[in-house]
Amino acid sequence: MTLLADLLATVFERRARAAGPSGRDGRTLPELCAALLGATGEVSGGALAGTILDRYESQDDDGRQGFFRHLAEDMGIDPQRVRAALDQEDAVTTPQGYRNFMAAAEPTRQELIRRLNQFPGATPRLVRMRADLLKFARKDPTLKALDLDFQHLLASWFNRGFLVLRPISWQSAASVLEKIIAYEAVHAIDSWDDLRRRLLPADRRCFAFFHPAMPDDPLIFVEVALTKGVPSSIQALLEESREPMTAEAADTAVFYSISNCQPGLAGISFGNSLIKQVASDLSAELSGLKTFVTLSPIPGLVDWLTREGRAHDPAEAEPMRRIAAHYLMTARREDGLPVDPVARFHLGNGALIHDVHAGADTSAKGIRQSGGAMVNYLYDLKKVSQNHERFATRHEIAASSTVRSLSAAEDKNRK
Amino acid sequence: MTLLADLLATVFERRARAAGPSGRDGRTLPELCAALLGATGEVSGGALAGTILDRYESQDDDGRQGFFRHLAEDMGIDPQRVRAALDQEDAVTTPQGYRNFMAAAEPTRQELIRRLNQFPGATPRLVRMRADLLKFARKDPTLKALDLDFQHLLASWFNRGFLVLRPISWQSAASVLEKIIAYEAVHAIDSWDDLRRRLLPADRRCFAFFHPAMPDDPLIFVEVALTKGVPSSIQALLEESREPMTAEAADTAVFYSISNCQPGLAGISFGNSLIKQVASDLSAELSGLKTFVTLSPIPGLVDWLTREGRAHDPAEAEPMRRIAAHYLMTARREDGLPVDPVARFHLGNGALIHDVHAGADTSAKGIRQSGGAMVNYLYDLKKVSQNHERFATRHEIAASSTVRSLSAAEDKNRK
Amino acid sequence: MTLLADLLATVFERRARAAGPSGRDGRTLPELCAALLGATGEVSGGALAGTILDRYESQDDDGRQGFFRHLAEDMGIDPQRVRAALDQEDAVTTPQGYRNFMAAAEPTRQELIRRLNQFPGATPRLVRMRADLLKFARKDPTLKALDLDFQHLLASWFNRGFLVLRPISWQSAASVLEKIIAYEAVHAIDSWDDLRRRLLPADRRCFAFFHPAMPDDPLIFVEVALTKGVPSSIQALLEESREPMTAEAADTAVFYSISNCQPGLAGISFGNSLIKQVASDLSAELSGLKTFVTLSPIPGLVDWLTREGRAHDPAEAEPMRRIAAHYLMTARREDGLPVDPVARFHLGNGALIHDVHAGADTSAKGIRQSGGAMVNYLYDLKKVSQNHERFATRHEIAASSTVRSLSAAEDKNRK
Amino acid sequence: MTLLADLLATVFERRARAAGPSGRDGRTLPELCAALLGATGEVSGGALAGTILDRYESQDDDGRQGFFRHLAEDMGIDPQRVRAALDQEDAVTTPQGYRNFMAAAEPTRQELIRRLNQFPGATPRLVRMRADLLKFARKDPTLKALDLDFQHLLASWFNRGFLVLRPISWQSAASVLEKIIAYEAVHAIDSWDDLRRRLLPADRRCFAFFHPAMPDDPLIFVEVALTKGVPSSIQALLEESREPMTAEAADTAVFYSISNCQPGLAGISFGNSLIKQVASDLSAELSGLKTFVTLSPIPGLVDWLTREGRAHDPAEAEPMRRIAAHYLMTARREDGLPVDPVARFHLGNGALIHDVHAGADTSAKGIRQSGGAMVNYLYDLKKVSQNHERFATRHEIAASSTVRSLSAAEDKNRK
Repeated sequence: MTLLADLLATVFERRARAAGPSGRDGRTLPELCAALLGATGEVSGGALAGTILDRYESQDDDGRQGFFRHLAEDMGIDPQRVRAALDQEDAVTTPQGYRNFMAAAEPTRQELIRRLNQFPGATPRLVRMRADLLKFARKDPTLKALDLDFQHLLASWFNRGFLVLRPISWQSAASVLEKIIAYEAVHAIDSWDDLRRRLLPADRRCFAFFHPAMPDDPLIFVEVALTKGVPSSIQALLEESREPMTAEAADTAVFYSISNCQPGLAGISFGNSLIKQVASDLSAELSGLKTFVTLSPIPGLVDWLTREGRAHDPAEAEPMRRIAAHYLMTARREDGLPVDPVARFHLGNGALIHDVHAGADTSAKGIRQSGGAMVNYLYDLKKVSQNHERFATRHEIAASSTVRSLSAAEDKNRK
Repeated sequence: MTLLADLLATVFERRARAAGPSGRDGRTLPELCAALLGATGEVSGGALAGTILDRYESQDDDGRQGFFRHLAEDMGIDPQRVRAALDQEDAVTTPQGYRNFMAAAEPTRQELIRRLNQFPGATPRLVRMRADLLKFARKDPTLKALDLDFQHLLASWFNRGFLVLRPISWQSAASVLEKIIAYEAVHAIDSWDDLRRRLLPADRRCFAFFHPAMPDDPLIFVEVALTKGVPSSIQALLEESREPMTAEAADTAVFYSISNCQPGLAGISFGNSLIKQVASDLSAELSGLKTFVTLSPIPGLVDWLTREGRAHDPAEAEPMRRIAAHYLMTARREDGLPVDPVARFHLGNGALIHDVHAGADTSAKGIRQSGGAMVNYLYDLKKVSQNHERFATRHEIAASSTVRSLSAAEDKNRK
Repeated sequence: MTLLADLLATVFERRARAAGPSGRDGRTLPELCAALLGATGEVSGGALAGTILDRYESQDDDGRQGFFRHLAEDMGIDPQRVRAALDQEDAVTTPQGYRNFMAAAEPTRQELIRRLNQFPGATPRLVRMRADLLKFARKDPTLKALDLDFQHLLASWFNRGFLVLRPISWQSAASVLEKIIAYEAVHAIDSWDDLRRRLLPADRRCFAFFHPAMPDDPLIFVEVALTKGVPSSIQALLEESREPMTAEAADTAVFYSISNCQPGLAGISFGNSLIKQVASDLSAELSGLKTFVTLSPIPGLVDWLTREGRAHDPAEAEPMRRIAAHYLMTARREDGLPVDPVARFHLGNGALIHDVHAGADTSAKGIRQSGGAMVNYLYDLKKVSQNHERFATRHEIAASSTVRSLSAAEDKNRK
Repeated sequence: MTLLADLLATVFERRARAAGPSGRDGRTLPELCAALLGATGEVSGGALAGTILDRYESQDDDGRQGFFRHLAEDMGIDPQRVRAALDQEDAVTTPQGYRNFMAAAEPTRQELIRRLNQFPGATPRLVRMRADLLKFARKDPTLKALDLDFQHLLASWFNRGFLVLRPISWQSAASVLEKIIAYEAVHAIDSWDDLRRRLLPADRRCFAFFHPAMPDDPLIFVEVALTKGVPSSIQALLEESREPMTAEAADTAVFYSISNCQPGLAGISFGNSLIKQVASDLSAELSGLKTFVTLSPIPGLVDWLTREGRAHDPAEAEPMRRIAAHYLMTARREDGLPVDPVARFHLGNGALIHDVHAGADTSAKGIRQSGGAMVNYLYDLKKVSQNHERFATRHEIAASSTVRSLSAAEDKNRK
């Protein structure tokens, strides 16, 4: 009746089929892969793809590494063949010449992965397969090269144009919500009651990107608080006994937590699009919203202070703020980008550093990582492109005068 | 609330945005493309992509051809750069070496097309763009090479694993149904009343593949009649005054029309998957169904007879059947495949030639193309793989003993 | 997965079951009704209800009238039993006394109708049953009394609180749209193309009320045109070649056609709620809309002129406007309400007569009924209650100064 | 887009509106009710109804009792007026006479409740209102009489034909699932993890009836375990560490818990329909299911043994079974129906007593209520009508020969 119903029917059916008998096939994984690549067209491909996925998933780590090594070593490109294709006359302008080049320059394993994806429900399984690969590749450069092919295909398949933004609410399926609990990476969700407090009140929102081939699996989600004014403490923001207000009364949307859900999609960036689409949708819905801001951790602060041999006292508010501002404005890596990974993300998106707060995250983790300091990154949709451009090309960090003053004062102090 | 609703909301929003002001940008199309490719990351990419799509669509044929020529000539691969990448040590096994090779071996235009697709609602616009390209490429081999890149990306995006099978019924949206009327290619649908007769009765079904990024646009659809016994006349099957029967009483599902809807997806095959999934779904739903068969035209028959200098008389049933069987079994192209395009499709899918009928399509087109003859291709799901394998590797044509006898009789006749 | 899917599943299942064998039961309709009423509880009730509905529907007019006569004559109240119940001490204050009274004062047929409704899918069948009853009751006062019970139950079941407002669009199911074509009562829809022109353009809307037990059957619908300024001609409004504008550019919503779909729900009013909810929803969606107005026929005008012995000339605009205004302002029935039925409806809803136009409906029907004149009724949501109150209690007709002047001028003319 | 979306939109809108300002109206509740009844038609009715509901809900118990007393005392029927209507000639056969009688015989408060229900979202609020009324009515017979009117209307509105059966699964909305946790009355659900174990495994199901005007609020639900063979222990059935099996492998569906969710719908029975529809749907889906059975508590057993002065020892299995069988077969109330309320429910539905088990519920509650014994009631869909008929008319209890033998043995023992 509805596309969704069909889509889910397809998914369920997939499960049913996937649960069916498979892998009675006596061939080895490499033999099965060869057969799948040899299959002329799609006729027997589907079943073979399912058998390969089942077989892969039934292996232990050694078996899986063996599978990846096979892909890395035996299904790569053949430089001689590429050179030969290039040596043909009109290799890149005639259809036949270019077809030959394309066939030579793309490793067979990319076609293998595409054919595996023809099996119903294969997409999330391929995403999990890549999560395995990334784990193994940490110690094995050959697998890192193989991963470039996985990443290339997944980036194409999880293109922004295919993603769907969905609100996550207390009306959402429990099967989705349990994943929100599991994947929240910034401020842990303790229980279903805690989740309820982050979803149900009129001044709380949550949004996630989904891919149609994985309708139950959020890719990335952001939690939003609607407030009056820019908040300066995460504990105050999440206070259990606080009095919710109506969404219409809010003037500020606070992105207080952004979490990726799929380790197998590492390196494929959705966060920037997510924040901007949510900001754009919220401002269309709630005309009172004027400010879009984060309340973000400063995870690298204490480590950096330690490396620099500098002391800090979380209890002294103004010195803490100066230190935090100075760190965010000046601590750079060799490539000129900020040391702080959260800063790199938001500044790279075109946000500016709006304010820093001491005593803003009094949790054990907050004190340990950043001496309790937090930062607001501001998304001014009109300036985001320009900020981004300057940051990307000249590593210029956009900041409010407050933050610049705090940083300058610390600079002076140190001299 | 539902994925569909979100998806459609996204789509509508896309339209709204797409309808907004764009293209005030003073830059030329090549400049805009360069800017899109130069944009670091996704920040300003979305809007630029939209501007490029708008600009392209506002051009006439000359402008569009110019755009394609730019892609063909200025955004291809640079053989020297590919060779240089291959000449690096460990070009294909180290991550950095392989990354360099991948960057050199993939033409810039593929990345351009992927970035265009990031714009909300871009996918159907890119499909239409390729339809234009195919038109121009008929006369221009350079554009044919360019088309290989379009086809490569679209085949990856329209991978079977991403498609959704949906029933098309009288409950479907009028916006979808009008496309069914427009795209029916085999037996034209005259009016909404005619469509109603093909959808509403209990013994009629229709199914289509959709891609989630084009929820309103069927990609391919098949019309099915549920019958008792294998039918031998399309006019009888579609008879207006016929008495429908219940679906449960049927023993045969007849695929009497398969139509592609998207010229821009030419060369990306869905039909085989469609027939098999529909057959599989129908047999799960209706346990009485034992036979899955087509009632298909023989579009090449009269042309072939003419070329061969042979006469035929549509009014003489048995001679007509012998001629049709003989044509289907023996008329081959140089590459050994059947001359008849419909035969190539179904035999390639693993179907067998079950029966041929004279006086089966008495429409003007039926008489003109095939002397009124039609053919049933039978899908025996247990033998489909084997039939396909033999056809693909040895060009063996599977046929019933009836058809083989008819062909043999004609063979004898001629000698 | 969704309530809708379940709801439709239930509906389809109902059909399936309803299509199953029934009515093999040898008992007569009155015997079946007695059995249904005698059934203790719901256990065997469902099947019996289905049998009765099937049996009823298989009858011809005589059989159906016989059924209604049985309900009218044998399943009414027994005045003696009511009196006896009232004579009990504490008949209306003790639970037992009041229960006795309620049992006596409600005719058995109401319980019969409620039990019939327990059968899956019974509601639309009972609505059609009442349509039959109304037809027979025109000539039979006893059946008119019986109809009061049907109306009583249906009014309770089709309570405003249970109705759902849904937009009707080119995305709606063909099965719903064909009913819009069939039921359009004011300005006939000629074809699916005509329907498309009324639904698809950005400046056209349509809304209907549905009852959840009849998800495919609109109860009443209204067609809306979004315009700049108040229109004065229906042909101009529906002009095929007109250039649509964006919804955002409109300042006026024109309700140009309201049609009831269910003869079996006659006397149960939805129109007032429909107009007000649509006006309220549209003004929430499109902030540019300032004026909510109808473009309505004046169906009683020519008849009234004829009865009054007055001449009129459709070609003379100003005289025609004066006559129309005078008719709407002054022509009353004995009960003091306007002669014109459309005027009664809109004035009863609290609208005011905003303007009258000559040459506004140049169709044959328009000329015949109203000499081509039409009227705008204005819904000013702030004044609707007050207008309604004055019309209901004092028969005061609200009108613009323009209309009042035109009527006064005609009044003067005639004297 | 979908009926559901519209329905929910309506619901949300209702909330939004309901949350808006109201009750600034200076009139008393009785004055507001009089105004609502006096309102001619629906024009100003909606807002008034909302004001009355808000006002009622803002009252404490005294205020609410006052409201009900007003309905009971001032909005009942007037016996004199009823008698006068009956004394008119043709009071029950002419439309006008019958209309007068209907108006006199129905208390004004029924019309008031119907008009309250016109306000968007009123239905669940009226259900909660009746829950209050039932609480007050326990001590006040006048309110018991008033409740008959509420019950009459709610029974008509919650007619089986309007209810929708929906599966409850781990895909259901958390807002619905938290109600399942809250309302489970038989075997408490401790946590979301516990709920997950009852919903997610392939051999567990749950179904609920919903009313379209309360799409978030289940009315009644049943939990089902799919098993091989008839189970004899609830702890074994719900064992955390058990190994789930596939649904297809099951031969038995066990209804192990049925819970009503709406105290305000007390006395309106859904349970019988629910069990039968679930049994019918499951047997259509899973052709392996042959047996539909409960695993039910025997809540009255220990109380009855105590009253009878009989001892029992939960540890002795066979004597416990005999005692339980004897109790179920013979312990009757004065009206001839079984003492045990669960037995009354299932036998009244047409089930038979299939088996009894000792040590079947070893929870504290199980030991306390029934000495650990439980019972299987068997739903044989072919015999349900006949069993029901005999039970309803002759109080005959259907039981298996096992149970009859056990009861007979105990009988003999006691003599």
